[in-house]
Amino acid sequence: MRTLYHLPLSPFCRKVRLMLYEKKLEVGLKVERVWEQRDAFLALNPAASVPVLIEEDESIVVGHYAIVEYLEAAYTDVFLSPRSLPEKNEMRRLVSWFDEKFYKEVSGVVLHEKIEKHQEKQGFPDAKLIRQALARLPEHMDYIAWLVENRNWLAGEELTIADLAAAAHLSCLDYFGDVPWNRFPATKEWYMRLKSRPAFRPILEDRVPAFPSTDLYKELDF
Amino acid sequence: MRTLYHLPLSPFCRKVRLMLYEKKLEVGLKVERVWEQRDAFLALNPAASVPVLIEEDESIVVGHYAIVEYLEAAYTDVFLSPRSLPEKNEMRRLVSWFDEKFYKEVSGVVLHEKIEKHQEKQGFPDAKLIRQALARLPEHMDYIAWLVENRNWLAGEELTIADLAAAAHLSCLDYFGDVPWNRFPATKEWYMRLKSRPAFRPILEDRVPAFPSTDLYKELDF
Repeated sequence: MRTLYHLPLSPFCRKVRLMLYEKKLEVGLKVERVWEQRDAFLALNPAASVPVLIEEDESIVVGHYAIVEYLEAAYTDVFLSPRSLPEKNEMRRLVSWFDEKFYKEVSGVVLHEKIEKHQEKQGFPDAKLIRQALARLPEHMDYIAWLVENRNWLAGEELTIADLAAAAHLSCLDYFGDVPWNRFPATKEWYMRLKSRPAFRPILEDRVPAFPSTDLYKELDF
Repeated sequence: MRTLYHLPLSPFCRKVRLMLYEKKLEVGLKVERVWEQRDAFLALNPAASVPVLIEEDESIVVGHYAIVEYLEAAYTDVFLSPRSLPEKNEMRRLVSWFDEKFYKEVSGVVLHEKIEKHQEKQGFPDAKLIRQALARLPEHMDYIAWLVENRNWLAGEELTIADLAAAAHLSCLDYFGDVPWNRFPATKEWYMRLKSRPAFRPILEDRVPAFPSTDLYKELDF
């Protein structure tokens, strides 16, 4: 069986896991504590980062960019991208919105302060930085709302990798109860649709030692 | 003619420019001072980031991820990717190495301190952060050397987007004379090969007001 080296609260690993589950590809998960720089893992990926996918034929695919493009090209029973180039451009624009802009402004800051500092023994979370990052969340919630009020899913009529990327980032914040869903009903409705999909269930079962999730994290009625 | 909104010392814009030039696609460049949040530009890209490509048919492609994949799919006279999936995975692994790891550890820090802070009126460069970032440069120079001692170009026998991404980041540091080329002869030889290509010439002509380049920046014998 294929194996994914991952971290449960990494948005980039969650995006890949959601793709694997939506495509109904069986995968065994291994948590890789990348900060320990394990020799056997560095041999797979000298960048010492996750996700890393080991395929059934033992081939190695390193990093979310390579894995996402690879899965979409290699497994075509379930497509998670539109077919035309302009629509692909729009989907990739939105993937970058979340993987670059949202990560830099919101999720990357919060996850670094709350989790990475603890894991890497870099001291305590900086409450001011977390507050500043979460203060930027509403503009992104509004943008999602605007998109899904004009389209069925973020990039158009069909579910695509853009939805999975956005949900991957938001679900990591939601684990800590940091998403004010009730102030953004259209965004909440979109997230409820994703959360109800079978592919989302394993994400909702994630539990990270030392970091309890909120009670509503796994509830479909939140 | 197509138009690229860009910033001269953005590694992500330089990667796209190098692709356009290697593919011999004519493009007019417009410098976009993204921090000014110009309304007409926000209408093109609400993320207020560059690069943004306007095609000859007026279609808009936003962000380096979308543009890179789009150019490679739409213009096939000159390929800048290998053909097989395992080789594409290796190329994309290396693109991520530079666009994520190298940017986070080295180029992103240096460029933020030296340029972005000045542009956004956020105060003076932090010399300690610059020193710490540049202290991580040698491990990356060694990694490039190791790759090109085992292969012709970074991802294999042919020049690919991995070389362009790596050169885009290094060339921004080189603009300030921050790359110790002579300590890394194999890496220097690889960069000389890139620098000698016609596609590199416009990059070497870049001049940014308020930031003079070093004398050796545009020299092929450096």
